[in-house]
Amino acid sequence: MGSLKLPTSAFASIPIRSFFHRHQHRRLCLSLKPSASTQSTPKTSTPSPKEKNVINTNNDQKSKPEGTITPRSQDFNAWYLDVIRHAELADYGPVRGTMVIRPYAYAIWEAIQDYLNVKFKETGHSNMYFPQLIPYSFIEKEASHVEGFSPELAVVTIGGGKELEEKLVVRPTSETIVNHMFTQWIDSYRDLPLMVNQWVNVTRWEMRTKPFLRTLEFLWQEGHTAHATPEEAEKEALQMIDVYVKFAYEQAAVPVIVGRKSKVETFAGATRTYTIEAMMGDRKALQAGTSHNLGQNFSIAFGTKFTDESGQKQHVWQTSWAISTRFVGGIIMTHGDDAGLMLPPKLAPIQVVIVPIWKKSEEKVNVLEAAVSVEKVLKTSGIKVKLDDSEQRTPGWKFNFWEMKGVPIRIEIGPRDVSSGTLVVSRRDVPGKQGKVFGISMERSTLESYVKDKLDEIQSSLLEKAEAFRDSNIVDVNSYDELKVAISQGKWARGPWSASETEELKVKEETGATIRCFPFEQPQGTKTCLMTGKPADEVAIFAKSY
Amino acid sequence: MGSLKLPTSAFASIPIRSFFHRHQHRRLCLSLKPSASTQSTPKTSTPSPKEKNVINTNNDQKSKPEGTITPRSQDFNAWYLDVIRHAELADYGPVRGTMVIRPYAYAIWEAIQDYLNVKFKETGHSNMYFPQLIPYSFIEKEASHVEGFSPELAVVTIGGGKELEEKLVVRPTSETIVNHMFTQWIDSYRDLPLMVNQWVNVTRWEMRTKPFLRTLEFLWQEGHTAHATPEEAEKEALQMIDVYVKFAYEQAAVPVIVGRKSKVETFAGATRTYTIEAMMGDRKALQAGTSHNLGQNFSIAFGTKFTDESGQKQHVWQTSWAISTRFVGGIIMTHGDDAGLMLPPKLAPIQVVIVPIWKKSEEKVNVLEAAVSVEKVLKTSGIKVKLDDSEQRTPGWKFNFWEMKGVPIRIEIGPRDVSSGTLVVSRRDVPGKQGKVFGISMERSTLESYVKDKLDEIQSSLLEKAEAFRDSNIVDVNSYDELKVAISQGKWARGPWSASETEELKVKEETGATIRCFPFEQPQGTKTCLMTGKPADEVAIFAKSY
Repeated sequence: MGSLKLPTSAFASIPIRSFFHRHQHRRLCLSLKPSASTQSTPKTSTPSPKEKNVINTNNDQKSKPEGTITPRSQDFNAWYLDVIRHAELADYGPVRGTMVIRPYAYAIWEAIQDYLNVKFKETGHSNMYFPQLIPYSFIEKEASHVEGFSPELAVVTIGGGKELEEKLVVRPTSETIVNHMFTQWIDSYRDLPLMVNQWVNVTRWEMRTKPFLRTLEFLWQEGHTAHATPEEAEKEALQMIDVYVKFAYEQAAVPVIVGRKSKVETFAGATRTYTIEAMMGDRKALQAGTSHNLGQNFSIAFGTKFTDESGQKQHVWQTSWAISTRFVGGIIMTHGDDAGLMLPPKLAPIQVVIVPIWKKSEEKVNVLEAAVSVEKVLKTSGIKVKLDDSEQRTPGWKFNFWEMKGVPIRIEIGPRDVSSGTLVVSRRDVPGKQGKVFGISMERSTLESYVKDKLDEIQSSLLEKAEAFRDSNIVDVNSYDELKVAISQGKWARGPWSASETEELKVKEETGATIRCFPFEQPQGTKTCLMTGKPADEVAIFAKSY
Repeated sequence: MGSLKLPTSAFASIPIRSFFHRHQHRRLCLSLKPSASTQSTPKTSTPSPKEKNVINTNNDQKSKPEGTITPRSQDFNAWYLDVIRHAELADYGPVRGTMVIRPYAYAIWEAIQDYLNVKFKETGHSNMYFPQLIPYSFIEKEASHVEGFSPELAVVTIGGGKELEEKLVVRPTSETIVNHMFTQWIDSYRDLPLMVNQWVNVTRWEMRTKPFLRTLEFLWQEGHTAHATPEEAEKEALQMIDVYVKFAYEQAAVPVIVGRKSKVETFAGATRTYTIEAMMGDRKALQAGTSHNLGQNFSIAFGTKFTDESGQKQHVWQTSWAISTRFVGGIIMTHGDDAGLMLPPKLAPIQVVIVPIWKKSEEKVNVLEAAVSVEKVLKTSGIKVKLDDSEQRTPGWKFNFWEMKGVPIRIEIGPRDVSSGTLVVSRRDVPGKQGKVFGISMERSTLESYVKDKLDEIQSSLLEKAEAFRDSNIVDVNSYDELKVAISQGKWARGPWSASETEELKVKEETGATIRCFPFEQPQGTKTCLMTGKPADEVAIFAKSY
């Protein structure tokens, strides 16, 4: 990078949505047309301002009313991109590999932030902000860190119209600058533990990008802590991976497997990396969050020392841990189905959508009045509710649209419901009539507790379904041949492993699978390495991954 | 920037805190030593983990127990930097002009975010995220925008180890990339209004920086909206400046003056800029928030069109509006005094600090028990409370420390208070014994309502004090001579203005003052321009500014 070369093709202005378009010809016709059971006269009138502002839904649905989603079973990748486009989750930015996070997906990210922020603060961390521009020399201070990150850097060389003396790196992660500051703040053991977190954007020059899963710039939180003992650092790294596990299970309904990374897969600069690994709908693994015990690697590189209780100078022991917008991709790929997105109630920007139904205009007033009152009841109960009272679309169209957007519960209110003081509740996760319950009372307390129970049920049900799927796709293997069969069937292979890094890399080369982790949950009994036949302490999980 | 020059000094690795240190010799000795009225035996024991984690206070206070703050009246700038250092609000980053926002200041920013996020959503906006890397060509599309921003850009020229074909700008503001995306999302009048906001970092290559007020990178929210008519855009621009006004008055207790910018001072690319201007403690003006009516400037540059109700293609009408971490600097400079920071209760990370006081160890148990119970009562009432039970420092030291950190209320509990079931409440904004009330009952409901009332009183009192200060420092002027006198006295000058831009620039050159705004609140009656003697429609406010 020292010599100045003529421009190469690292930046290319790709026409917008070309990536999406490439996949359009493969789509089946699952069109968003009204279902037979309901209709109303479509009219072209202005939609309510409310509808537009909540999620800015109204572009693709209007310009592409024939919008279709490739069935998941047919082409998982095309399905994923279709869902992202039709549910208006993201768009590509003008710079290759960058992503615009649209309001509906950003609201999921905000729900993730809200939950984690509480947990981070409960566990003693404070939020703060470190600058994103890092002197290039910082990155070079920790040997394995520079090796891991230097191919991925975006570098600022011009500032205020002038060439800079020292090139600046746009933060790919912040361990280096964090340690530079920690060195100034930490003096004695009384300053420890120092426990902070920041919610920021990071930039990594990824060559093969995919919305949410791998983008040139993404959003994340990165926690950074410094401790007086290696035991405390280890405890912290484990505590934070546990926060992630609970988040994944309880909020996202994503049944991750938690474990330790192999040395090959450990973070550049860490002593030990803990990870949560999620199984996507195509059975590929997604590394969904990591927590690193950094040991003294960065504190030695940056001279981050403290005086201990006996008056001796020591380097601090550190951790860092992160979850990113990648998790939003993980949620899409875990729960979605042929109809589109399916969101866990606890993270859904809209938990309940109300679709009023009428044929004659004299029915309209009463139906809308009831719908507004139901909306109010649910909103007061703290439920995230949306009334779709637009007159541009038929109820059937709306059913399909909100199903595609993954809203957990739909409430239908028609003229007959109004006269009986009841409504119809449909579950997103149980397709067709099976998921539909008629005659639920509109009475405040009945309705509130019914809907809350249903949301809880859906939350649990999504987790159970994902767990069953995961468990039926993990195969216990005792030889390399068995491993190869499992991987070739698209499954995860779990087997005893004590072989070398060379052999680990050989598996990757020959099967495409990597060690996702040595899971915390280990089977009892003596084990024999599937590769070498020698004794093994642990089983590892191998899988292809994103 | 086309030709490649040898490196210049735009990046210089300045030793940390050198800027602060430069000012240290000017300090008076306002040392943080125990006050005479209270003592306890200082012990060197480990502080409670809680104390350390909430705000990571314990560095400077330990390494520099003699920490002093320059009196505000003596040197406002040195005072400001001292407060930022001693209250642990920020530090410089390793790259010139960048800033690390430390937990205590970041918590103020979070309180600002919490309030504004609710208001933005109530007014129909959704949060989302646009990438920070913008093709250089985008910046050039809107003529006055490129003129305004090109001297301040940080430019990425290398990505993934290769020279880029097109240079990328690190977002200085996002109008260009927003319009690039809006163009794809907006098709018909039904897609309007489109109203979004993002909370992000922005980078501007400022040459003269000052913590919070002007830094190379800062945090802000930027709202962006598109409308079908100029009237709607104007209404939105006014609505958002009004949100800022209410925030400033009601949350920050900063009595801003709201008005319209002169053409010279209008945002690069806007048709009209509305501003809130705050008077700092040194009577300089701080532009604390702006809302721009962008007209069709960006929509024409980026071809952002919609089909109106009559089927005609039209360019959209737009706004953008922003408040940044600069506001934190504004709060410091509005309310602080010689003792340090003074925070408005509604934005204070800690609203109440409890300092337990004991002499004999047999008193300790009861005092601490009472303190913990008071902490619990206040916490349950939703008050942000901190119990400073560390044994390293004397109560007197703690009094000074928490005063310096600007905590609105201090509660003292000693052995005699415990026996009488009462406590002592001290107000940060009323110094000495005048602000101290003895014998407040510890009984839950009495205590809760007393503290809440006091917090409200302090909030109002800070605003009143700042308003009185502001009003006593704005002078009505009717001639250029009067204006010059007012400015030379460090005041704001308000006078009728209808002169030319040349004359406006002449005022700046000769007095250092600029038109801060044409305030919305205008005096009645005919007006004669202070410069030209010709009729004037409005008065303008002139002041020196940050």
